[in-house]
Amino acid sequence: MKRTRISHGLAIHGGVGILSRSDMTPELEADYRAALAESLVAGRRALDTGGSALDAVVAAVRVMEDAPIFNAGLGSNFDERGVVTMDASIMHGPTLDAGAVAGVTNVRSPVELARLVMERSEHLMLIGEGAEAFARAQGIPVTDNTFFHTERRREELRRAKERSRGRPTVQGDGAPAGFSQASGPRPATGREIGGADDPADRAGTVGAVALDASGRLAAATSTGGMANKTWGRVGDSPIIGAGTYASSHCAVSCTGWGEYFIRNAVAYDVHARMTHAGVDLTEAVRAVLYDVLEAQAPRSGGMCALGADGSVELGFNTPGMYRGWIGADGEPHVAIWGDE
Amino acid sequence: MKRTRISHGLAIHGGVGILSRSDMTPELEADYRAALAESLVAGRRALDTGGSALDAVVAAVRVMEDAPIFNAGLGSNFDERGVVTMDASIMHGPTLDAGAVAGVTNVRSPVELARLVMERSEHLMLIGEGAEAFARAQGIPVTDNTFFHTERRREELRRAKERSRGRPTVQGDGAPAGFSQASGPRPATGREIGGADDPADRAGTVGAVALDASGRLAAATSTGGMANKTWGRVGDSPIIGAGTYASSHCAVSCTGWGEYFIRNAVAYDVHARMTHAGVDLTEAVRAVLYDVLEAQAPRSGGMCALGADGSVELGFNTPGMYRGWIGADGEPHVAIWGDE
Repeated sequence: MKRTRISHGLAIHGGVGILSRSDMTPELEADYRAALAESLVAGRRALDTGGSALDAVVAAVRVMEDAPIFNAGLGSNFDERGVVTMDASIMHGPTLDAGAVAGVTNVRSPVELARLVMERSEHLMLIGEGAEAFARAQGIPVTDNTFFHTERRREELRRAKERSRGRPTVQGDGAPAGFSQASGPRPATGREIGGADDPADRAGTVGAVALDASGRLAAATSTGGMANKTWGRVGDSPIIGAGTYASSHCAVSCTGWGEYFIRNAVAYDVHARMTHAGVDLTEAVRAVLYDVLEAQAPRSGGMCALGADGSVELGFNTPGMYRGWIGADGEPHVAIWGDE
Repeated sequence: MKRTRISHGLAIHGGVGILSRSDMTPELEADYRAALAESLVAGRRALDTGGSALDAVVAAVRVMEDAPIFNAGLGSNFDERGVVTMDASIMHGPTLDAGAVAGVTNVRSPVELARLVMERSEHLMLIGEGAEAFARAQGIPVTDNTFFHTERRREELRRAKERSRGRPTVQGDGAPAGFSQASGPRPATGREIGGADDPADRAGTVGAVALDASGRLAAATSTGGMANKTWGRVGDSPIIGAGTYASSHCAVSCTGWGEYFIRNAVAYDVHARMTHAGVDLTEAVRAVLYDVLEAQAPRSGGMCALGADGSVELGFNTPGMYRGWIGADGEPHVAIWGDE
């Protein structure tokens, strides 16, 4: 996928799961490409019908939330209890307004809820049942947790639990299974994570960035989190500055090993390198992905990013990332593998 | 309070609440100064007895969590339902390891739980009941929510609800009272927040930064959040990069209007300005507080910060901040007002 620059449009990612061609069937690959194109076209349609960059990222992310092949909304990963808990965030570059939700179990579109938190609450972030009460008060669709369940994710949970079975766990009073052994501080370089030894288990997230004809940037991210994650675990997707950031300089949505994206404030760091060090978007994205993340956690993820000048970056340190962009001509461009 | 530099020691804040001398009684002021000194001495004792910077920030924050005059642990603010929900985070500079919890209702020391998430889980952030289940599994003290309740905070909740009574609210199906009106996007510059028109209502947080004799930096923050906050609201305190950050360059703990600290990734931005723009700690803290925050939201808060060279910054754009520092000689220095 060639580097490009657009006058207005979107870039999206659908996570960095399924890392090798051998694990991918032709049918599933076709489904991914079709869903990515559909997401891009939906975002572009929002722009064409007078919508803002914010409208575009929500439209694009909603298509991926509704597609069961992505780990967000319908088709989200299960946590260790077999429950789907979802996180999302959104940010509007021109104003720095932002919204985020974490740990919601029944909201049909978490990204829509994040936008409502931004626009209709006096807060930036709501979590858990409080976020769900806000969703009901706003009248957006809520549903039963089973709505989000898919057989494929149930199978992934089963495999993740199998892989983690060899590990010691501690059973506390009233605690669910799956807590990690409490034998003392783990090494700072520890690569273990949740039940997810397989990077594919922790790599699912969807996101979009958009630049509208008025030059406004926006970013949004939505996820079901890691497969077999500890009850209550939150990654970078709902964290403004980690999984999502937008300013007048850039818009960024990340996917990958959330813990590393949080501690390096990855999305904000792209903005910070542009504004404090004066580098362009390409250099900022490369520095964060390869100099920072790759050094701490190889194959840890990627991001879609847009600059105010329309430059598009779809970067990752994994073998692939579901991704795409769409510009002024309305033609969706999608890719999965690193060599495309 | 003069600018200083220490070989090892701590700096702390206890929030930016009670903004004018007219609202402060001599007895309460004496209590604050005594508790700040006690916190500093506890942190220093941790260092003197072979503890690390991490041990020191936890010891210092725990003293303030246990003191009912600070908005953290015992004495936390109530949310709109009259429930105490607490958030905390911690970060270890040398390794960038971090831990965070949000929305916990029964854990005696939220900062201790954040440390356990960092050291004994494979995740960085746990929220709500999942975080509480982890606390039980780890065997740390949990208690009833009423343990954290104080008459003073109940009175503050009553006043906050009175102040917000004039505002339109929307009653959704099953939603609690207090949601703000859903009449459309609010202006980007909107200054309204929760039930907290009074900056004092949203300004309570405690935090500590430490530098140990081995040159390691650490930071920790703990809070009960805003008075009368919407159910589920989370501010910057548990957000690594917003309320708390530590690296090999600096350690930062923030207090103030959380929404603005999140969208500007305030704690990380101090680090980013030092590493990307090459400025020193003093200049980085001043730029963030005065060029960034003050421009977006006057009187929005402050921070305690330590540089790897031992430089101490206790900065705020409010009339005062409960604060202090302690260095090699073991003498605690505390202050409240801006002219001290």
